[in-house]
Amino acid sequence: MRTVDLILRKRGGEELSVEELQFLVNGYTSGDIPDYQMSAFLMATYFNGMTDRELSGFTEVMMQSGEILTLSDIPGVKVDKHSTGGVGDKTSLICAPIAAAAGVPVPMISGRGLGHTGGTLDKLEAIPGFRTDLTLDQFRAQLKELGLCFIGQSDEIAPADKRLYALRDVTGTVESIPLIASSIMSKKMAEGIDALVLDVKVGNGAFMKKQVDARRLAQAMVGIGRRLDKKVQALITDMNQPLGYAIGNALEVMEVSQTLQKAGPADLTRLSLELAARMIFLGKITSTLDEARKLAEDRLMDGSAYAKFKQVVAAQGGNPQALDRFELLPNATGMREILSPRAGFVSAIMAEDIGRASQMMGAGRSRKEDVIDPAVGVILEVKIGEKVEAGSVLCRLYYTGEENLDESADLVEDAFRISGTRPDERELILEVVG
Amino acid sequence: MRTVDLILRKRGGEELSVEELQFLVNGYTSGDIPDYQMSAFLMATYFNGMTDRELSGFTEVMMQSGEILTLSDIPGVKVDKHSTGGVGDKTSLICAPIAAAAGVPVPMISGRGLGHTGGTLDKLEAIPGFRTDLTLDQFRAQLKELGLCFIGQSDEIAPADKRLYALRDVTGTVESIPLIASSIMSKKMAEGIDALVLDVKVGNGAFMKKQVDARRLAQAMVGIGRRLDKKVQALITDMNQPLGYAIGNALEVMEVSQTLQKAGPADLTRLSLELAARMIFLGKITSTLDEARKLAEDRLMDGSAYAKFKQVVAAQGGNPQALDRFELLPNATGMREILSPRAGFVSAIMAEDIGRASQMMGAGRSRKEDVIDPAVGVILEVKIGEKVEAGSVLCRLYYTGEENLDESADLVEDAFRISGTRPDERELILEVVG
Repeated sequence: MRTVDLILRKRGGEELSVEELQFLVNGYTSGDIPDYQMSAFLMATYFNGMTDRELSGFTEVMMQSGEILTLSDIPGVKVDKHSTGGVGDKTSLICAPIAAAAGVPVPMISGRGLGHTGGTLDKLEAIPGFRTDLTLDQFRAQLKELGLCFIGQSDEIAPADKRLYALRDVTGTVESIPLIASSIMSKKMAEGIDALVLDVKVGNGAFMKKQVDARRLAQAMVGIGRRLDKKVQALITDMNQPLGYAIGNALEVMEVSQTLQKAGPADLTRLSLELAARMIFLGKITSTLDEARKLAEDRLMDGSAYAKFKQVVAAQGGNPQALDRFELLPNATGMREILSPRAGFVSAIMAEDIGRASQMMGAGRSRKEDVIDPAVGVILEVKIGEKVEAGSVLCRLYYTGEENLDESADLVEDAFRISGTRPDERELILEVVG
Repeated sequence: MRTVDLILRKRGGEELSVEELQFLVNGYTSGDIPDYQMSAFLMATYFNGMTDRELSGFTEVMMQSGEILTLSDIPGVKVDKHSTGGVGDKTSLICAPIAAAAGVPVPMISGRGLGHTGGTLDKLEAIPGFRTDLTLDQFRAQLKELGLCFIGQSDEIAPADKRLYALRDVTGTVESIPLIASSIMSKKMAEGIDALVLDVKVGNGAFMKKQVDARRLAQAMVGIGRRLDKKVQALITDMNQPLGYAIGNALEVMEVSQTLQKAGPADLTRLSLELAARMIFLGKITSTLDEARKLAEDRLMDGSAYAKFKQVVAAQGGNPQALDRFELLPNATGMREILSPRAGFVSAIMAEDIGRASQMMGAGRSRKEDVIDPAVGVILEVKIGEKVEAGSVLCRLYYTGEENLDESADLVEDAFRISGTRPDERELILEVVG
């Protein structure tokens, strides 16, 4: 088998066999196939896509490039949840405790934020003392005991994907639906879970700008799950404005706490409940989705989800008191208000710009090695559809240093559109796939 | 300027500026841009092509990556001829002496053969003593004195193309019309010529299998020439059977000698005369193409083209007597006849298979470092349209070793199609572009 022949066949739109994809991925991981051949293959894949069979084969081969966790000694249907990344998206910290409180074992393996979207691990680490670097044994033990554990992805999971992702990043081959789908699913499928709920974000703050692309990505991932015999459902949800009001790690933890105490934003509460309900349903705790929705709401309302979250925080070394007493969380030292230039209706809040401003103030990384500042971020005062007066507060920036502050403020100010007429209401959950 | 952004723009079908192409080519040549980014760019170019402006810009940038010859001290319009490569294509050794004998200065800078097509330098070196490794000063002096000189391409000409070509070869990005056109033209435009006649081969023995692709390639190269202010014309010619009867280096030299002595095959004579006429016309020796055709024929008929070739052979260290006494050329030690399995008409001769068989016997290289055997090759006894009897000779293989002989014989035997009806006559010169 010659690599160049496989590139030529992919270039010509032919289907490669699983053995051929294995040859490519294993050869690349071992260093036998050089970067320059793999990048040509990736670009040809960008243009010609993958068949369903190629997609599941490619995913499985990447999954098998590293360690595959086994959680079969833990009873129950293990369910994880994954989001393709949004601004202000802290749903994992809400839906996971709800699902766990309802009896679903939730082995939540999360990533860190890069670019304008935040990462679950970064948010959790804003809680003083919280540790995500557990050993696998600690992870299993906590999952068995509490039904929920948060850890980071180990380097041993899908190393082929890690190498491929780094190459895609510098060769203009990131935005390929089969490559995105296989990258996400190879990691998730290696984590020993039985089912997965996906939140595919679409809109100006998401990776996918168009609903048709989000649908294709969701379909690709659900299809991979089906062929690898895992239950996978995907919600396609709106990311044309930040989710909730808080953007920034400690600020988002505060909003999580409020939401788990039934005082959270409507959109965040609604989406977290629906994601939790899907986890409960796929986890076979209930036999219908409606029962699962009812159970999710009950577990939120009766305080057991919040209690579960506090247990988990304590178990992972964090101070659960910080969830009630926000002065124990990292706090910003300065605040700046962004005012509305005129009266009217908020017709758009460019989520990506809000995310980028928050990142620039220190809440996120532009490079992997950047250290983040958990205290900083943005709190929206209004959301799309609300009426504002000239000079009323649109949002507040929380900062600890003046560096990049003016630039961030400009970015945030420009992110708001104020128009004379009330915009149409938009759906939060747009579609369900799977 | 970031390389990945240029890849993304090419991937998206946008036009790059000359400065951006320069950044890419120079960065790649200097080593600042790694292979893996360039191969992604090349694959994106394969899919999205290049605009006319990009194509001439890219060619010029590659041309400027190395030495650019100046021949302005030599009087007259300097004209070269280039073929995209065929089987049995020895026209350069015939049209160049004709054009030179008609007064055109012909600085012929040629390549070596790779794969199933032969190279002009390899053919010339079958003449005992012939040297193509002249210095640039020797080259100029001979061009001034005799009006014709054959040398190989120096490593200093278009080094960016050399590196790019090696990368394309292993990344499945060879078959791209803008990349082929810019590769050929960057070298030719760096050679100090004023005009160029191109022979774009099409058919089963050529790189381009379809006439529409050959036309696009010809148009691309003619367009580059126009924008770089050089006169370029291209003939699109049939390569569905070998040109002439001889394939293999010394065998082809013999056929060249016969053709220059007015005893050559009709197709080879006709095409060589037309190419020479185009060189004479572009070289402004005559004011019309018809006059140029008449002059080319005269120079062939009056023996002056043959005399010119002998002068050049002698000047470059070769033994001109070998052109009259073929026993002085390298000769094969064995011969095998390939017989027709049945009576009928020759309806096809797969030129690529004949070329490959000849290469396997030692006439060509499969890798650059292979040493070729000048004596071996194939002599056809029949061409398409001729009537054969069962058992009559289709061609003869000339060999010096038995290695690969059976395999070559099988390949050659399978290359002939014998059918019951006489095939339609086919045109040799299919189109003129420019």
